[in-house]
Amino acid sequence: MGKRIGTQSYLLDSKPAIISAASFVGDKEGKGPLGNKFDVICRDDTLGLDSWEQAESRMLESAVRLALAKMGKKPSDLDVVLGGDLLNQIISAGYAARELKSPFLGLYGACSTIAEGLSVGAMLSDGGFSALLACSASSHFSSAERQFRYPLEMGTQATPTAQRTVTGAGAIVIAPQSSCIKNKVFHNVIISGGTIGRVIDYGITDASNMGAAMAPAAADTICAHLKDNTLTPNYYDAIITGDLGIFGSEMLYELCKMKGAEIESVHVDCGKLMFSQEQNVNCGGSGCGCSATILCSHILPMVESGEYSRILFMATGALMSPISTLQGESIPSIAHAVVIERNML
Amino acid sequence: MGKRIGTQSYLLDSKPAIISAASFVGDKEGKGPLGNKFDVICRDDTLGLDSWEQAESRMLESAVRLALAKMGKKPSDLDVVLGGDLLNQIISAGYAARELKSPFLGLYGACSTIAEGLSVGAMLSDGGFSALLACSASSHFSSAERQFRYPLEMGTQATPTAQRTVTGAGAIVIAPQSSCIKNKVFHNVIISGGTIGRVIDYGITDASNMGAAMAPAAADTICAHLKDNTLTPNYYDAIITGDLGIFGSEMLYELCKMKGAEIESVHVDCGKLMFSQEQNVNCGGSGCGCSATILCSHILPMVESGEYSRILFMATGALMSPISTLQGESIPSIAHAVVIERNML
Repeated sequence: MGKRIGTQSYLLDSKPAIISAASFVGDKEGKGPLGNKFDVICRDDTLGLDSWEQAESRMLESAVRLALAKMGKKPSDLDVVLGGDLLNQIISAGYAARELKSPFLGLYGACSTIAEGLSVGAMLSDGGFSALLACSASSHFSSAERQFRYPLEMGTQATPTAQRTVTGAGAIVIAPQSSCIKNKVFHNVIISGGTIGRVIDYGITDASNMGAAMAPAAADTICAHLKDNTLTPNYYDAIITGDLGIFGSEMLYELCKMKGAEIESVHVDCGKLMFSQEQNVNCGGSGCGCSATILCSHILPMVESGEYSRILFMATGALMSPISTLQGESIPSIAHAVVIERNML
Repeated sequence: MGKRIGTQSYLLDSKPAIISAASFVGDKEGKGPLGNKFDVICRDDTLGLDSWEQAESRMLESAVRLALAKMGKKPSDLDVVLGGDLLNQIISAGYAARELKSPFLGLYGACSTIAEGLSVGAMLSDGGFSALLACSASSHFSSAERQFRYPLEMGTQATPTAQRTVTGAGAIVIAPQSSCIKNKVFHNVIISGGTIGRVIDYGITDASNMGAAMAPAAADTICAHLKDNTLTPNYYDAIITGDLGIFGSEMLYELCKMKGAEIESVHVDCGKLMFSQEQNVNCGGSGCGCSATILCSHILPMVESGEYSRILFMATGALMSPISTLQGESIPSIAHAVVIERNML
């Protein structure tokens, strides 16, 4: 049985296991500092399909299939797929689920999606509702740019605060610890709890400054998590955010400091890890695929190997809509956190 | 603890209770056959705000507040709000959650959203993760038309298969049966299980024929539910679909018949209940708000009073995207079902 703790957090009594994961990324991501870690690098970001949207959906579908295939499993073995992406009506996840033919729960949390999926997935597993499930999320630079900002053909120059939407998809497989599945990719990675985020809005209206929009939500969730669990930041080997980028991370430190938490020394941001300075992406990477692929292929292996023994993983989402922005609304954000640990048993 | 059963279904051991609900609808819905049942009828579908999108969000927020207020509760008493709507980036739910300030899980299941929310909400409650949560969904005729079809100013004529997106929002409050909350609106309504839908696509490409797009998903989920639980349709007093409308309901009967299930005699469709023939809406109502408001204000009271002792409630969603339709894709759909019963204890 699960347990609520404080105002936003929960503990998972059974501590469900993360047993596999897989990641697909685009060419530019493959040329970044983590390039050698991802499972598949797609040099052509259309995957030879007719549209970027179709390519993104295919990456999401393929990530789920690959995460399962690593253990000799198939989509038909899944009790449920949780998934989402940045596109209107989450078409990447929807069309992927059509091909996977598994029971499907569609999520929208913008770039927080993989953490929302892990949260719900871990709770469903703990509650006895699933023997095997997958959480998935994707984003694609080209499909996101034309939906949220400008047609790529315009060649618009990015502002200094802009982050580059990552082309990538990640899938994570969760099962009860007692599951006797063979050939698990990870044997020692568990989820022990988490904190469900609130929608926070500090009035940012600049669609090229996602870090500033999301930092307040990240600070809110981190501080709620620490308070609910009566912890200090250094309880964790790392507090890992999704895609605040360089500027958003600075804001996060300030906001946490104002609330009495000093997190800079343990903070890692996936948006800062994805690209090198030489790749000319201003403030870093963003998008559902940023934190999803880095979690799958960089962070989870570090927990498995013992480099990290306990982390707070928190993806952050800007719930930005071109429609509401045109109507004068600001950009609200949300951040969900899960506690991922190395199983010491 | 929950229990998986068959390929897509689950049983809820603790049978969480539905303890309150509230509905907001627009003027045309208020003039329909169920007009006297809804909590609030908004004669001006802008609610005096600057846009239909803002009005829809306000209706969603207000429905949650009202469902809580009926029991003397506030949004701050909630462990989590689950919500979604039809708009890009689910802005109605997102901005509502910003005002409610509760932990928030955003869902996208198009018109199946309220059933997806009830499914996840009931599982979280059963798993011990919530003492009080709300599930919510909304739609708005005017915001949906311009996003999915044509600007209203064009005065486009509806086709014979078209359904009218319902302007409305519904919110349902779930708590463990043992909860000692005073002034519960419903004392005898419980959720005992459900079936998570798969994404089904029969190749429909006509955005004015949602019933045809969704009927295959409805048939798939109903038949999976019956098979997983070894039941026949007349086990239920009613099998209630969200918004198949007149044409979609006919398709559903045929599709179920082909799979060996005769459901016509127990079938009820919210899309057919919302408007009268005189209201000139072709095939009936649709939208997240259609099934959500009718569930809140018509069906749940019937379960409470004993008119229904056991129903299968299943909202159906067309995962339609103007972008993917323009790219030549067909409209995939999904349907999630929950078993709602009168508590005989």
